[in-house]
Amino acid sequence: MRYLMTFSYDGSKYHGYQKQLVGNTIQNTIENALYKIAGNQNIFIHATGRTDAKVHAYNQKAHFDLSFEILPDKLKHSLNSLLPNDIYIKKVEIVPDTFHARFDIKKKEYIYKLNMGEYNPLEKDYVCQWNKELNVKEMQKAIVYLKGSHNFKSFTKANNDILDYQRTIIEAQIQYIPDHNQLLFIFIGTGFLRYQIRNMVGTLLEIGEGKKRAQEINVILKALDRKRAGITAPACGLYLKDVYYE
Amino acid sequence: MRYLMTFSYDGSKYHGYQKQLVGNTIQNTIENALYKIAGNQNIFIHATGRTDAKVHAYNQKAHFDLSFEILPDKLKHSLNSLLPNDIYIKKVEIVPDTFHARFDIKKKEYIYKLNMGEYNPLEKDYVCQWNKELNVKEMQKAIVYLKGSHNFKSFTKANNDILDYQRTIIEAQIQYIPDHNQLLFIFIGTGFLRYQIRNMVGTLLEIGEGKKRAQEINVILKALDRKRAGITAPACGLYLKDVYYE
Repeated sequence: MRYLMTFSYDGSKYHGYQKQLVGNTIQNTIENALYKIAGNQNIFIHATGRTDAKVHAYNQKAHFDLSFEILPDKLKHSLNSLLPNDIYIKKVEIVPDTFHARFDIKKKEYIYKLNMGEYNPLEKDYVCQWNKELNVKEMQKAIVYLKGSHNFKSFTKANNDILDYQRTIIEAQIQYIPDHNQLLFIFIGTGFLRYQIRNMVGTLLEIGEGKKRAQEINVILKALDRKRAGITAPACGLYLKDVYYE
Repeated sequence: MRYLMTFSYDGSKYHGYQKQLVGNTIQNTIENALYKIAGNQNIFIHATGRTDAKVHAYNQKAHFDLSFEILPDKLKHSLNSLLPNDIYIKKVEIVPDTFHARFDIKKKEYIYKLNMGEYNPLEKDYVCQWNKELNVKEMQKAIVYLKGSHNFKSFTKANNDILDYQRTIIEAQIQYIPDHNQLLFIFIGTGFLRYQIRNMVGTLLEIGEGKKRAQEINVILKALDRKRAGITAPACGLYLKDVYYE
């Protein structure tokens, strides 16, 4: 029986999503809980993709197979009773055996939170703090160039030996939230490369600071060279917001 | 020279505000930073009052004396560079030698955040999670009885050997925030007894659950008996919001 679970987590204390031999990860933690529920059987969970250390998720999804049947709601409660309080299973559902949490994705949505106001220790792990003046209008002009289908090699890890750097960004926008003097970056795409969002945000921040111009995004995209893009924005501002299937 | 500082903190990792021999507290941490700035001199800071373990502050205030003069803004930056990222000095100002951060208080404002929606691991240290149905209208009716000058002995620590339990609550209200399905309790008063706010919130929650009636607040106040009031609500939902002087 194949199960799909939707879960949220506070990534602050984790070495990212993906299982590692050393260090606590989200995948390890959930698989340890499933191990107990499955009567000391190893259950591998297949997520929609990994998130880096300190990155958060509102609605991450993963599928897994169990050799026995259990009511989705019962499974949800058993998991939550075994998991630490920074991971929460929001929903468990039964899916067809052919369903795959990663391969079947139609689009993914990420958000990035940036605080331009006074530093708030209560949000230290949940927003990126930015103390330099930003030209938000210029950044909003620049982000439009990222929309569409592009080779995003300039915006991913330099030594990333992957075959296809082509990705499609369906929606990309920056909202200004006056009450908090914060920026909310929204990215919806068919998929994203490693560090792509944080590198896009870092580049947009350099544009906001006047170090680069909005139109330069096109030049950076064409260069296919990580060195041409901007910094990697800190992990703590990034959230996997939603994953969409058919 | 007497200085007054305004500071915010995430209380999650601290054993409360007040200095202790064992355990990390907000006061210890700030005094350790001042010790370095003052060239290895012990500086005692006088806050507006203590906050319990895991309680947060947006605008706590404390005064202290230095035997030398330093520009308030320079002192602010020196302190922030020495403090961990869960404590932040928002402002330092010079005050008259007769000023006292605790004795001169006119009123204090506390807020309490309660989440009635789905559990959110990203807010685990910042709201009180409440999964039982609450009659908010009944709670809003009840909170009105707490306003005014009363003997609050029923709402403080049972073995609290203090002389005067009389306090005045100037404002007390419960706001419902539909976007987040959260309740925001606001209390403004001349001062509060130990655990008073958390015990008032706990009692209001029992009224919301139908275990007590709104009018019972009057009976509880008159009883002068801690056992008559409700539970102590969890610390993590409580914030010292503001302290007002003349």
